[in-house]
Amino acid sequence: MVFDTRPLSKKKATYIRQLSLKKYRLQENAFVLEGEKNIQTLLTSSYAIRWIVGTAAFFMKQQVLFEGLSYPIACFEADTALLSTLGSLQHNHDVLAVVDIPKKITEPILSGITLALDNIRDPGNLGTMMRIADWYGITNILCSNTTVELYNPKVLQASMGSFLHVQVHYVDLYPYLQQLQIPIIGATLQGSNVHHFCFPNQGILVVGNESHGIDYEIEKLCADTVTIPAYGHVESLNAAMATAIICDNWRRSLQPLFPPPMRP
Amino acid sequence: MVFDTRPLSKKKATYIRQLSLKKYRLQENAFVLEGEKNIQTLLTSSYAIRWIVGTAAFFMKQQVLFEGLSYPIACFEADTALLSTLGSLQHNHDVLAVVDIPKKITEPILSGITLALDNIRDPGNLGTMMRIADWYGITNILCSNTTVELYNPKVLQASMGSFLHVQVHYVDLYPYLQQLQIPIIGATLQGSNVHHFCFPNQGILVVGNESHGIDYEIEKLCADTVTIPAYGHVESLNAAMATAIICDNWRRSLQPLFPPPMRP
Repeated sequence: MVFDTRPLSKKKATYIRQLSLKKYRLQENAFVLEGEKNIQTLLTSSYAIRWIVGTAAFFMKQQVLFEGLSYPIACFEADTALLSTLGSLQHNHDVLAVVDIPKKITEPILSGITLALDNIRDPGNLGTMMRIADWYGITNILCSNTTVELYNPKVLQASMGSFLHVQVHYVDLYPYLQQLQIPIIGATLQGSNVHHFCFPNQGILVVGNESHGIDYEIEKLCADTVTIPAYGHVESLNAAMATAIICDNWRRSLQPLFPPPMRP
Repeated sequence: MVFDTRPLSKKKATYIRQLSLKKYRLQENAFVLEGEKNIQTLLTSSYAIRWIVGTAAFFMKQQVLFEGLSYPIACFEADTALLSTLGSLQHNHDVLAVVDIPKKITEPILSGITLALDNIRDPGNLGTMMRIADWYGITNILCSNTTVELYNPKVLQASMGSFLHVQVHYVDLYPYLQQLQIPIIGATLQGSNVHHFCFPNQGILVVGNESHGIDYEIEKLCADTVTIPAYGHVESLNAAMATAIICDNWRRSLQPLFPPPMRP
């Protein structure tokens, strides 16, 4: 082995378990990331890793990953039984990392499409929305301070590594949007048909709370609102699903206009 | 009260708890549906309800729902503490129903867009796909026999009542698709760009397993395959998310062609 691993102490195991709670994450300024694929991507990112805890098999297999690192990382060995008690995942108990929460970026530089999330409460939804943003090349997400915390284990899990590519900024959403000079488009149930809407080249897509939609004051800031046309009985789509569909429509509208294909 | 309710017996409570397992659902030919909104819709459907178990407050509030029924339903009273031990929901412990699993429909009549799910394993995904189908007016879903069971509580919960509007047929997918005379389109990672693809007026959209995609033999039955163009780093979209986006593209392509909006 090109690096040393020590057995994980009980004290450190307790510390890691505590980080499943938001209170401790904020106090310790650290979060836990689980899963081999996530750790692989993490090692190529600019995040500061404090510890890596993995099985002997993981360290053997992934030796090469650690060879190119510009700084040493404290590595600890634990078996899968112990690892499964430390994290939140139901499977994938080979490795986890304790990572510094990065300092706040003072001011996001917005370009192209930006997502703004008003009071999204479900961690799975936030994670999925980050994955969608990443898919559509959206690099900034503005979150209201009431939106679920980024480093919640369920958010990280649902984001499938996208949190390493997408910048998430927690802001006081109303005043933040108010001072912007770019068009704001709200996703609502009574807006323009998203299939015919003429999206701007640059803008903000605001998606509201799962039950209550966009805050009334924030909706007033929207230059336009858009709606996905419904053809059936169901009253609403899940917020992440609606985000995916609207982002797809926005993206396709920005492409150089091809002649429409002939219908057979 | 216009109808009688009796307290729920211990024996019936045990019976209901057992229905959380597939084995008992198949043996007893019954499933459990939870939540006030679901029950409201259920009462207007053709499903045969065996029992309704609710709080006194639920029966008081919803009296009018029961007045229009053409057949009597056995109603049992339980408090929220007991109800919370019977079902699978984390919230919404006001009411649940024990419902007969309907007899198999011999032959689905396919028209417009039909969804075919090849080995979807995640109950949340199946439920979400039913909600998407319902949104886009898709009335039939063909499921491979390896796809997660429709009456799994997590499927019903994620479907948000859409299982009452969408017909789900479990079939031996390969021979079933093989004998169809309508075009089959597969969702893959190397297909035609979904933004430019010319969708037929009628057809089947095949979505494959979350990890392995569409079965090789089934993919060979596809007249075409489509892909959602990616603009970022993430390798794949969740299967339900991809289904939503492709259904949206298919639906919008079937609309009377409007002149494209002028870009500002």
